[in-house]
Amino acid sequence: MMKWFRDNIDRMAGYVPGEQPAPGEKVIKLNTNENPYPPSPPAMEVLRSVDADCLRRYSDPMADVVRQAAGRALGVPSEQVLVGNGSDDVLAMIFRACCAPGRRAAYPMPTYVYYRTLAEIQAADCVEVAFDDDYALPADALADANGAVTFVANPNSPSATFTPVDVLDDLAGRVGGLLVIDEAYVDFADDCALRLVGKHANVIVLRTLSKGYSLAGLRLGFGIMSPALMPNLVKVKDHYNVDAVAAAVGAAALDDQAWMKANAERVKASRSRLADDLGRLGFRVWPSQANFLMARPPDGEAERIYSGLKARRILVRYFKQPRLEDKLRVTVGRDEQNAALVEALGAMA
Amino acid sequence: MMKWFRDNIDRMAGYVPGEQPAPGEKVIKLNTNENPYPPSPPAMEVLRSVDADCLRRYSDPMADVVRQAAGRALGVPSEQVLVGNGSDDVLAMIFRACCAPGRRAAYPMPTYVYYRTLAEIQAADCVEVAFDDDYALPADALADANGAVTFVANPNSPSATFTPVDVLDDLAGRVGGLLVIDEAYVDFADDCALRLVGKHANVIVLRTLSKGYSLAGLRLGFGIMSPALMPNLVKVKDHYNVDAVAAAVGAAALDDQAWMKANAERVKASRSRLADDLGRLGFRVWPSQANFLMARPPDGEAERIYSGLKARRILVRYFKQPRLEDKLRVTVGRDEQNAALVEALGAMA
Repeated sequence: MMKWFRDNIDRMAGYVPGEQPAPGEKVIKLNTNENPYPPSPPAMEVLRSVDADCLRRYSDPMADVVRQAAGRALGVPSEQVLVGNGSDDVLAMIFRACCAPGRRAAYPMPTYVYYRTLAEIQAADCVEVAFDDDYALPADALADANGAVTFVANPNSPSATFTPVDVLDDLAGRVGGLLVIDEAYVDFADDCALRLVGKHANVIVLRTLSKGYSLAGLRLGFGIMSPALMPNLVKVKDHYNVDAVAAAVGAAALDDQAWMKANAERVKASRSRLADDLGRLGFRVWPSQANFLMARPPDGEAERIYSGLKARRILVRYFKQPRLEDKLRVTVGRDEQNAALVEALGAMA
Repeated sequence: MMKWFRDNIDRMAGYVPGEQPAPGEKVIKLNTNENPYPPSPPAMEVLRSVDADCLRRYSDPMADVVRQAAGRALGVPSEQVLVGNGSDDVLAMIFRACCAPGRRAAYPMPTYVYYRTLAEIQAADCVEVAFDDDYALPADALADANGAVTFVANPNSPSATFTPVDVLDDLAGRVGGLLVIDEAYVDFADDCALRLVGKHANVIVLRTLSKGYSLAGLRLGFGIMSPALMPNLVKVKDHYNVDAVAAAVGAAALDDQAWMKANAERVKASRSRLADDLGRLGFRVWPSQANFLMARPPDGEAERIYSGLKARRILVRYFKQPRLEDKLRVTVGRDEQNAALVEALGAMA
């Protein structure tokens, strides 16, 4: 009898997203790196003014309003922008266009778990190179890995650490394949790798509106790349991948840079206070350039603390996987949310 | 030097969606099978009332509000419903989970061009079986094709013809793999294949909100299937594939069955009038159960007519491919749009 599914799909486990409380459930939610502040008010106005014809007709296949807004916001030509239903959609395009049995995906570990999931769907080989304990990028090993694509999340998740752009610049010249720099969290960082797109034909920088722009529920992200890379990725893109509402609202959010940056500054100030507070409780906290912290409790019993916090209706993220069993990933919330977390941790100590 | 992209991606052409006029451009648009009537007013109300928190937080990975609304609308258990960013997204999940080199996709031809595109992305083998001139389903050849998945659009596009559900019932028992019945246009048909889901473990029925529900710009569709098929498809689903706005608006539209059905009845009445008018002009018109007509002009010079209509600011769809060079696909619009089309055709004759 024919097997209905491919063997690699039968075998793989699938990605498990962070838990989402039911609507209306009262929890302090510091587990999926959402922005604690609301999206741009002008963007919300656009949402309210979407007309029926915009829903009735098919959306623009390339989401040009988003390409143009991204171009204005980042100072790049709109021809370099490829829009996705979230940056995860652009990641999926890259994996589908580049990775297959015999064509490798390379990335450091631990990092965004979804890279492995997407590689498994393609039945591609993975080269997973360990970060050291300080989360310095293992650039030599990645350059030697011979990946059709090399993925570097920068800032990295769950470590929150940042690889200097000079290191990525050097790596881009050494990898034989594409280098994808996933900047989902870069709105909270001090630097970014956009300048590498003009310099290296093989670099793709990914951005999302889920974090800095407080639009995780909208699903909008994009890649910035040499236009020469675009045609093959467009071939695997769903032709109407971005809906008309998300495109209109997202473009308005990109045009409101002041709102995004003001919220990012508030998050960064809170991040610094929370890192100090966790340090005082004896946690090791890795230097963060993101809107979250990776923290190791003094006794390394991260799973116990995760469960204890959950019982107190505070959600943080615990990854039961090598290198992470003794750590927590904590989203930086509003100051009062962070203080409640610190108080609960103090009470549990 | 390493090739950045897979060979099959380099080689393939990619899907070309129907042309979309620029916003504000005055055309009579009968080329992409959009519904001429607006979406449900209660659904538009939901759109206006979406709050900032709904955008700030990640959406529900399984879009449960849509599953439940689809369950209510169709009388199926919500556990049988898998929601996609358009039914194209569900199609992509099925191709990614089931098709690969050595694992075939089978479908009749001509049909929805995107099946071939998705097969090419997977580097899967395609078995394309020709419809006869009356568009009776070549069921024997499809059953013998040994597809890991067999796809039947019903009503079919671009022919608008309908395969009796008994024929699909029989085919489901004869194919070794999955049978996907793509009912994108079924809201304009007299029957549907939903009853086959309970009967055959290998049947997936696809639905979209783009046509009957006038929500093409929103990107929302779903598959109905045995729950046993769900886990492997969820593995390849983007974890947050459906945005929170689309889920909320789509659920409200599904709950407003009366609105959808009233518009479908208006379209069906117009379809009948338009078919008569085209017949009077000497066109051969295939029997339509969809919101469009496949029509062959008396002289078979479809491309000339397509261009002439375009010059008159009327867009219809012309597919330059075998079996279709002599035909047009015409979306059924409002009566005054259809009358303008008929008048233009008369003037060009």
